[in-house]
Amino acid sequence: MSLEREEPHYFGAGPAQLPTNVLQQAAKDLINYANVGLGIGEISHRSKEAAQVIENTKANLRKLMKVPETHEVFFMQGGGTTGFSSLATNLSAAFVGKHGITAPAGYLVTGSWSSKSFEEAQRLGIDAEVLVNAKDYNNGKFGVIPPETAWADKLKAKKYSYVYLCENETVHGVEWPSLPKALTDSDIEIVADLSSDIMSREIDVSKYGVIMAGAQKNIGLAGLTIYIIKKSILDDISAASDDQLREAGIPITPIAFHYPTVVKNNSAYNTIPIFTLHIIDLVLQNLLKKGGVEAQQKENEEKANLLYGALDKHSDFYNVPVSKSCRSKMNVVFTLKKDGLDDKFLKEAGARKLTGLKGHRSVGGFRASLYNAVSLGSVRLLVKFVEDFAEENA
Amino acid sequence: MSLEREEPHYFGAGPAQLPTNVLQQAAKDLINYANVGLGIGEISHRSKEAAQVIENTKANLRKLMKVPETHEVFFMQGGGTTGFSSLATNLSAAFVGKHGITAPAGYLVTGSWSSKSFEEAQRLGIDAEVLVNAKDYNNGKFGVIPPETAWADKLKAKKYSYVYLCENETVHGVEWPSLPKALTDSDIEIVADLSSDIMSREIDVSKYGVIMAGAQKNIGLAGLTIYIIKKSILDDISAASDDQLREAGIPITPIAFHYPTVVKNNSAYNTIPIFTLHIIDLVLQNLLKKGGVEAQQKENEEKANLLYGALDKHSDFYNVPVSKSCRSKMNVVFTLKKDGLDDKFLKEAGARKLTGLKGHRSVGGFRASLYNAVSLGSVRLLVKFVEDFAEENA
Repeated sequence: MSLEREEPHYFGAGPAQLPTNVLQQAAKDLINYANVGLGIGEISHRSKEAAQVIENTKANLRKLMKVPETHEVFFMQGGGTTGFSSLATNLSAAFVGKHGITAPAGYLVTGSWSSKSFEEAQRLGIDAEVLVNAKDYNNGKFGVIPPETAWADKLKAKKYSYVYLCENETVHGVEWPSLPKALTDSDIEIVADLSSDIMSREIDVSKYGVIMAGAQKNIGLAGLTIYIIKKSILDDISAASDDQLREAGIPITPIAFHYPTVVKNNSAYNTIPIFTLHIIDLVLQNLLKKGGVEAQQKENEEKANLLYGALDKHSDFYNVPVSKSCRSKMNVVFTLKKDGLDDKFLKEAGARKLTGLKGHRSVGGFRASLYNAVSLGSVRLLVKFVEDFAEENA
Repeated sequence: MSLEREEPHYFGAGPAQLPTNVLQQAAKDLINYANVGLGIGEISHRSKEAAQVIENTKANLRKLMKVPETHEVFFMQGGGTTGFSSLATNLSAAFVGKHGITAPAGYLVTGSWSSKSFEEAQRLGIDAEVLVNAKDYNNGKFGVIPPETAWADKLKAKKYSYVYLCENETVHGVEWPSLPKALTDSDIEIVADLSSDIMSREIDVSKYGVIMAGAQKNIGLAGLTIYIIKKSILDDISAASDDQLREAGIPITPIAFHYPTVVKNNSAYNTIPIFTLHIIDLVLQNLLKKGGVEAQQKENEEKANLLYGALDKHSDFYNVPVSKSCRSKMNVVFTLKKDGLDDKFLKEAGARKLTGLKGHRSVGGFRASLYNAVSLGSVRLLVKFVEDFAEENA
């Protein structure tokens, strides 16, 4: 049975391409892990082998992201959507635990995902406010990051339990260039969704209250989500009793997503999908060998510059509906200015084995996702096609 | 790279052994699925390939379990522990949606898992009652199924939103021989955890309101949970507005676990772990080829009879702390009557490559799990060892 494949050039937005050598090792380990005679997915989540996978993954993640001692790392099922609910209830509980009173949560809405996260907090009955909605600054469409002056005064006017943002919006191709100064200058807890740009660039983890990231873009298969949380927030959540929360009107978090419980049980309070975790570990080992996040960031910048450069060079033919100051390095969104060529674009790209380029159904056009596992070589082939197509169809 | 392995004889309680041919096919599909040039875990969960995997798995599951048209099948992340919370909130909402008022939930507690499920419902603020606790009928220890007369009158005395049971308790080795008549004779919704005995024996799905089953024992890897639900319950949940639930004091279910939302989105409201689902599909295809649940049940009965037979034959040496009328066919729990031989038992079993036999830390002794993928051959080797050990150490 062959475990070989031709290197793919897949630009899908996620689940996304993974390094072939990682998948080959995982395939072997699915059947017989470390010569124990069983696959890694068949072993008890409380076995020493599984515990070692959890420890290795945490250690490699800490190393790659330079996670300080002030922060804890853990893993849960449920994807980013479960993060939307669990972040809202855990962080609201933390505020009650620390201050004995409630405070509203603030959301910086810059695309569909931050918008969905806000809606979920509201739906659960959390007191949540939109601090700013980027649509209001761009004729009703996402595509910009509003100036901090638009919302920084609100932050100062009252207490917030936390402020939430999504660092990279996959649907609209909008990425925060860095954390806003109005937040990092304040003592408010920053809660950030890094699902689509985790480990794509260096960040200062100490600035964050919580980082949440689904695995299925840069670091693995769907089915596990990474959390990095300030230890003091864990203590604050634990300090809030269920009765206190009920009185304050904060929903009790389901036990499988109660952060202190998950951390206390080393991410194995319930059965952790250990094969899925092992793939993350292999991806992290692979990234360490490649030179870590610093080297990956350089490559990602080169990939994004090449592609945006080609689109801008043919700006009479292609449109990039995102402000230059916040163009995503992970998801390059663009449309054709001429009507009627979309199908032809996809077909001819497919003929060159460039796949996964269709835009999100809610925005149309095209989207090239340049996650960590998409090689510079694949991007060069895409750039060549983008230029050829513009020249042939201008 | 080799995908071969010696056939394991692994009796762990879960995650559990899977058929080697299933894992071999999955390993190949992890790298290049159906010749699309990408692994099944790398493809969009909204692609036609992923949609086909979801459809196939549902169809095969319906076929194997003879799921009637009145019932819907769906998949979620989060394991049984997430089931404990999502069943409590969704089913309580269904009662409000149907009757406009709340009613308590009733729990039949026969071991750790039904006990944990009850505790979680209470913790979330659901009005939940223990209808019967098996410990009260066995000197404070699990190991029996109490007579229906002990709780059937309570059922008649008032309305319950649902009655919950765990069909097979893995820690204590206790299995309901069949659904209790007091329940099937009533019109109350039966909510059952089948995590550890799904597809081990034929059941009549029409009798159940909801079946919930984590995949990692009989049907796959950890990371996905199967739900089979009466369609009318979905309608009832949808009929309850968030405001109505808040007024009734029923917690709002996180959107990723709101059953009608998941069903409406064909189990892909959020990103479904498609590789994990594909393994389930391969396990189901394999079971269909082996003759379905009927054939599997016969084999499971033979396996359990052989092992309990050997233990009973040496009843001066081994103790089975479970009443004969409810001995689990999936998890055979036993202890040695002599002290000081436990380590020797495990060591000598290991020398014959019989592994995963250590009992749960909360009960000690030994546990041989005889899930679907554990072959009759493996059980025969275990039986031989059990007899030899008794004879050599009597």
